[in-house]
Amino acid sequence: MPGKSKKAPKNKIAGSRAHEKNLASELRRDLVTGDWIVIATRRADRPHAFIARGRQAEDVRTTCPFENPQKSGNSEPLFLLPPGKSRDWSIQVISNKYPAFSPSGECKVARSRGPYEVMDGRGFHEIVITRDHSKHLALFSREEAEDVIVAYQERFGALKKDSCVRYMAIFHNHGRQAGASLSHPHSQIIALPIVPPDVERSLEGSALYFKEHKECVHCVMIGWEKQDTKRIVFENEHFIAFCPFISRTAFEIRIFPKEHDAHFDHMVRDHYGQFADALRFSLSALHKTLENPAYNFFLHTAPLDGEEYNHYHWHMEIVPKTAIWAGFELSTGIEISTLSPEQAAGFLRANLTPNA
Amino acid sequence: MPGKSKKAPKNKIAGSRAHEKNLASELRRDLVTGDWIVIATRRADRPHAFIARGRQAEDVRTTCPFENPQKSGNSEPLFLLPPGKSRDWSIQVISNKYPAFSPSGECKVARSRGPYEVMDGRGFHEIVITRDHSKHLALFSREEAEDVIVAYQERFGALKKDSCVRYMAIFHNHGRQAGASLSHPHSQIIALPIVPPDVERSLEGSALYFKEHKECVHCVMIGWEKQDTKRIVFENEHFIAFCPFISRTAFEIRIFPKEHDAHFDHMVRDHYGQFADALRFSLSALHKTLENPAYNFFLHTAPLDGEEYNHYHWHMEIVPKTAIWAGFELSTGIEISTLSPEQAAGFLRANLTPNA
Repeated sequence: MPGKSKKAPKNKIAGSRAHEKNLASELRRDLVTGDWIVIATRRADRPHAFIARGRQAEDVRTTCPFENPQKSGNSEPLFLLPPGKSRDWSIQVISNKYPAFSPSGECKVARSRGPYEVMDGRGFHEIVITRDHSKHLALFSREEAEDVIVAYQERFGALKKDSCVRYMAIFHNHGRQAGASLSHPHSQIIALPIVPPDVERSLEGSALYFKEHKECVHCVMIGWEKQDTKRIVFENEHFIAFCPFISRTAFEIRIFPKEHDAHFDHMVRDHYGQFADALRFSLSALHKTLENPAYNFFLHTAPLDGEEYNHYHWHMEIVPKTAIWAGFELSTGIEISTLSPEQAAGFLRANLTPNA
Repeated sequence: MPGKSKKAPKNKIAGSRAHEKNLASELRRDLVTGDWIVIATRRADRPHAFIARGRQAEDVRTTCPFENPQKSGNSEPLFLLPPGKSRDWSIQVISNKYPAFSPSGECKVARSRGPYEVMDGRGFHEIVITRDHSKHLALFSREEAEDVIVAYQERFGALKKDSCVRYMAIFHNHGRQAGASLSHPHSQIIALPIVPPDVERSLEGSALYFKEHKECVHCVMIGWEKQDTKRIVFENEHFIAFCPFISRTAFEIRIFPKEHDAHFDHMVRDHYGQFADALRFSLSALHKTLENPAYNFFLHTAPLDGEEYNHYHWHMEIVPKTAIWAGFELSTGIEISTLSPEQAAGFLRANLTPNA
């Protein structure tokens, strides 16, 4: 696939070495698995930076760069709510000051280095910041959570217009143990020049299932969860949240739209509120059950490469940090969950606030 | 594959529900990816157990169950060094008191539950304990490290005779952040009834490469590392250790035998010492460079299912905990390393003790 782009590269630069200096990162492709990894060396270059000093103190409001992003040297907002009122913003989206992917570099052109393929880390890396330093998503009202969905959808819509973008990763890290380097609530949007390996595997699996069974594998999963009921955490007219039968981690939750659709950005405006509810009720149940755990949530949606993905079904996954990936998980890819999803869903349901 | 075993199950038990009570775990297969996950609920069953309380205090020698494993209620050793002298042991291998896989249960027989396949967590879970509570592998002499390899090979040889075993996972967790629940140095051996998904993917990739290029992909990687030299950390006659060009994590190291072989257990006795050297020099360089970091190391070897895997090449991977898997990594499977393997290998080489 790489190297076969029909578009002319936008920034043709001779000589990959000099070139690399202006890039956020380089993609390198694993010879064995075909997976891509990213080397983003501008972010740290001394071994000292990799020495674990234990859990650092949480940052404080007075020094937080997201309290006033522009005063902290960030670019002007790419999106703002309420629109136009920059001083009284409730949400703003900015470019990441330390991007893992940046718009410089060649578009979808792979080069060789020894037996390997490498590619420029061309893309976009944005941050969605909500105003309140300590009010995180588990504590949001429906309206506040809905605004976050509005911001995701607005930037998804804007970034997908770039012809280099093949996949949109949207994710949120909460808590140091989940990799959040700043405690001020923020999500990230990374527009990628490749389809990520894990997404590709899910796409292949769902395409295969569709071919064999003439059904969306995700619709089958949702149907069975609705029938079995034990693992359901939250449900409204258009969305369902459950601890999947094949949970990789204790207390993992997935949120699916009940109507089949491969693309997150196809969600109609009228459904944002219900999706926001599914997300905030799930996070709030986790917050209460596990006493404000660190967690990650992230979107899985169909790629933006012009192919047909009708066998896929977009969803959001919420993964609390309840375990550490150790030698067994790293060597096999098999995760061992020490709580069944049936038990987890029961605990979470007991902590669901009535839908106000 | 599952359900097609030609062997009669050794423990035929009717009724999966009652059956499950005696099992260490249940394997469940993901409908989309085909991957297996493990639910091992005997290990913890209250949400309380999943609440992170920050980094716990290190355990102390006086309460450590590995100081005198049998006095702490563990089974008699399955293997002992020096042989026969149980009081003056330097290494012992015992069954894990809290196994993730156990010999009860049906062998390689998958059942359905709703649209899913499930399987008994049948296998073996052993622990390789070295005597000194605080002397970890980075500090081992060649002879001490060689004894660890002897123990791995002995148990590998014994467990592979069980006809249910399809894969042998051998791994070592050092430090709480790398998932070691006890600080006393110990490795783990898990004999699995399936070929793990990550191993299967590497096997498929290396088979494909072999078909296209008539060469072992790992031999090609080793050849290029030897030619490029920048990423080599340690080398002796039979083994080479380097930070791979496609490192997933900063300071990742892989150790390969230079002679092509798919199977770890084919290693001849004469090579144990050199392999032990490659391992301990790599760990010692990490120990000095990153000031005793938490790390995992693990074996990748060909499965034990009777198939031909001549396209594969066994190796050991060492992965220090230099980063946290956050939302981006979890959602895409792409890891972002903020130090290049070229830089990492340079730092590690500067901290190599001369080969004594």
